[in-house]
Amino acid sequence: MLNTILNHRSIRKYKDIPVSEEILSKILNAGMRAATTGNMQVYSIIVTKDTEMKKKLWEFHFKQNMILEAPLVLTFFADFNRFNKWCKARNAEPGYNNFLSFVTAAIDALLAAQNVCIAAESFGLGTCYLGTTTYQAAKLIDFFKCPKDVVPITTLVIGYPNENPELTDRLPAKGVIHNEMYNDYSIDDINSIYSEKESLASTKELIEINQLENLAQIFTNKRYPKKDNEFFSEELLKVLKNQGYL
Amino acid sequence: MLNTILNHRSIRKYKDIPVSEEILSKILNAGMRAATTGNMQVYSIIVTKDTEMKKKLWEFHFKQNMILEAPLVLTFFADFNRFNKWCKARNAEPGYNNFLSFVTAAIDALLAAQNVCIAAESFGLGTCYLGTTTYQAAKLIDFFKCPKDVVPITTLVIGYPNENPELTDRLPAKGVIHNEMYNDYSIDDINSIYSEKESLASTKELIEINQLENLAQIFTNKRYPKKDNEFFSEELLKVLKNQGYL
Repeated sequence: MLNTILNHRSIRKYKDIPVSEEILSKILNAGMRAATTGNMQVYSIIVTKDTEMKKKLWEFHFKQNMILEAPLVLTFFADFNRFNKWCKARNAEPGYNNFLSFVTAAIDALLAAQNVCIAAESFGLGTCYLGTTTYQAAKLIDFFKCPKDVVPITTLVIGYPNENPELTDRLPAKGVIHNEMYNDYSIDDINSIYSEKESLASTKELIEINQLENLAQIFTNKRYPKKDNEFFSEELLKVLKNQGYL
Repeated sequence: MLNTILNHRSIRKYKDIPVSEEILSKILNAGMRAATTGNMQVYSIIVTKDTEMKKKLWEFHFKQNMILEAPLVLTFFADFNRFNKWCKARNAEPGYNNFLSFVTAAIDALLAAQNVCIAAESFGLGTCYLGTTTYQAAKLIDFFKCPKDVVPITTLVIGYPNENPELTDRLPAKGVIHNEMYNDYSIDDINSIYSEKESLASTKELIEINQLENLAQIFTNKRYPKKDNEFFSEELLKVLKNQGYL
């Protein structure tokens, strides 16, 4: 069991083999067994299998080909819509149009997503999260015809792997885990925590290709630059306003 | 493996038995194998074992006794602090003081938390998430001496179970899963989706105890009322501003 978790790799190449309805149903059921706040289950999952629908998602998600290759694309939403409709139908006044409730609903969606990820991997399937989901929230809401109170938070691509990548590196535990108090990082700590990552052959290759000084600059200048983050931040805040959470 | 996920129950009573360092280390390592955005690992975990520290957490988390009983309390933080310090030490200008980056970091923290939850359960441990974490974020930041860019997002209480509750109910799959498009809910859909939950003996008992008309009113009037949600929303938004994410 723990092995499934320990062997997680993001899979970006998939075989042209469908996932059976039986396995899909088991995976989704595993997602639904995740803890949710007050057992309110304030999230939704949209399953995309249709080729034309996947083509549109491929466009939204920056044309990553794994979206076309993989048989399943699952989008996870923070979703108070169903719960609010239930309250209103029961003469109960919902009070969930606020930021806290968005975070609550996003937590529900993400814990369910990770259950789905692990369950899929336990069936020999590969998965990859799409971080572009929050960037493109407005387009996804429009595309899926989501009502108010529904905000996409993450996406999982799922299918049979057509690659077998190595485990990716992780920071040493002392870089992530703190005992009793937050142990803030000195320059020496930072150097020590990042030294293994910085000395990987793959890191050196990336720096060479990108013609930059170091790995950190690849993140700040190429992969997740300030300008893009600030643009997509404003977009996401607009989405929260439009969907009734701000 | 799937059985661990399918048998998840929140455990609120714990035996007075410590969790070995070996198991704790394996659980934390499982958390660290979760997918993170761009492998940035922009989250942290604080492990609380100390009795006096737990007493303070017990106060912050609305005096739920399981916090005193369980040997481990793990707080998960959205955390760009380490990454930003690394960037600055490498002549790279971080651009992560914005809302999108908060959401990115919160996602990292939550996927790691769910791995920890499942890994703990695979060792026979019980767990319970504390939704009060986002309510009390300012107090937790102060208590743990967290620097800027660090925001608590959830907490897991972990220990050997001293109760064996039934699985809790879940809405039928049609209530949570959508195929291809968001399938918005009619009144008939709502009635059908919630009928099983509403007819449970435990629901009837709750309504009786609370002297209310129905289950929805228990959520809106007692458990998660508008006034509280709005208050804690404002508090959480202030935290995001103070920590540099808004």
